[in-house]
Amino acid sequence: MNKDVAATVRNAGAGGAARELDFYFDFISPFGFFASLRVDDLAAKYGLKANWHSMLIGVSVVKVMGMKPLLEMPLKGPYIALDARRYARRHGIVLARDPGATPVDPRPAGRAFNWLLEHRAESARPFAQRMFAAYWLQGRDISNQAVVNEVARDTGLNEAEVLEGISSEEAGRLLRANVESSLARAVFGSPFFIVGDEPFFGVEKMELLEEWLAQGGW
Amino acid sequence: MNKDVAATVRNAGAGGAARELDFYFDFISPFGFFASLRVDDLAAKYGLKANWHSMLIGVSVVKVMGMKPLLEMPLKGPYIALDARRYARRHGIVLARDPGATPVDPRPAGRAFNWLLEHRAESARPFAQRMFAAYWLQGRDISNQAVVNEVARDTGLNEAEVLEGISSEEAGRLLRANVESSLARAVFGSPFFIVGDEPFFGVEKMELLEEWLAQGGW
Repeated sequence: MNKDVAATVRNAGAGGAARELDFYFDFISPFGFFASLRVDDLAAKYGLKANWHSMLIGVSVVKVMGMKPLLEMPLKGPYIALDARRYARRHGIVLARDPGATPVDPRPAGRAFNWLLEHRAESARPFAQRMFAAYWLQGRDISNQAVVNEVARDTGLNEAEVLEGISSEEAGRLLRANVESSLARAVFGSPFFIVGDEPFFGVEKMELLEEWLAQGGW
Repeated sequence: MNKDVAATVRNAGAGGAARELDFYFDFISPFGFFASLRVDDLAAKYGLKANWHSMLIGVSVVKVMGMKPLLEMPLKGPYIALDARRYARRHGIVLARDPGATPVDPRPAGRAFNWLLEHRAESARPFAQRMFAAYWLQGRDISNQAVVNEVARDTGLNEAEVLEGISSEEAGRLLRANVESSLARAVFGSPFFIVGDEPFFGVEKMELLEEWLAQGGW
């Protein structure tokens, strides 16, 4: 089989599986926030449906991988904070929260997002975008349920059913189930992308991911 | 101070410090190998002197950072191997050793390299390049002192003094001192680049490093 034919076959094969781009993030990850600003344009450019999924770094990194929280790691912790500040400067993003500061508990935001995914699917992504902005651009404490509720209202979600649902036990179960599901796909950080079965970790893999999409893999 | 003046001052300030590009690698790191194939061209393009330094991932990651060996980490270990294979395919590099295979002890190679840096400085880099090729392209066991000696001979180093020196206690001391020195600069992985005081970790940061050099930072 010559190279062009092989590429065509591979594209066709991947075509079915790769019509979706899975995007995993944690709200307290600055690189997850940066990726959230670009992922929909990237998906649209290649005709892919972008599926947003929240995960919890604290579970994958600390519990499953047995590492220290990233920012507390000797040597690497300070680098990660510097790298996030450097990315923000380069892209003209003015952060209200320093990426080196201790993160807040992301679970209230994660619960709400996962409840919306289940019950108000069309509102989940705009809610996530506002949540990211609340944390990174406005410096708000998104571990506070009152703030989470405000973000929901700002997204146009005013019904009592929604405002009860996003902090319900069911929301907690949905978050846990989706974290389990991310671990089953070996998602270990934020942002994380999967197209077909191919994993890409980190916001700076987005250029490689784009090459992968343009070429149909290699 | 307006923006252009600030940029000029920063360039001038960094200019003195940044006329060198420090490149840290471990011979058993596939990404260190990949970077070794590109770093000299990058440095030359911006008129920088590239200084090659070996480090030991086993010391920085396992001892200082308290992590498991990278390839043994749940979730991330398999990803790293996949990512290295993917990089090799994309760049047409045919590896004789699988990046997912358990690495050998890199210290004999590291000792020899550091002894050469001290006593045969002009031979250290060609030796390192042959050592990388011996391990990654020829699949040789570079933990074997006989192989290290062959690589030295292939680099044109035939003197008895050299062949004794590269496995001497002094070579061991030099390796340890340079590993300490890398830790003092917060080098935690391979490849790692420092220009001025700015750190860049990973082969896929080389594009960002190039932007940094082209713009004089930001």
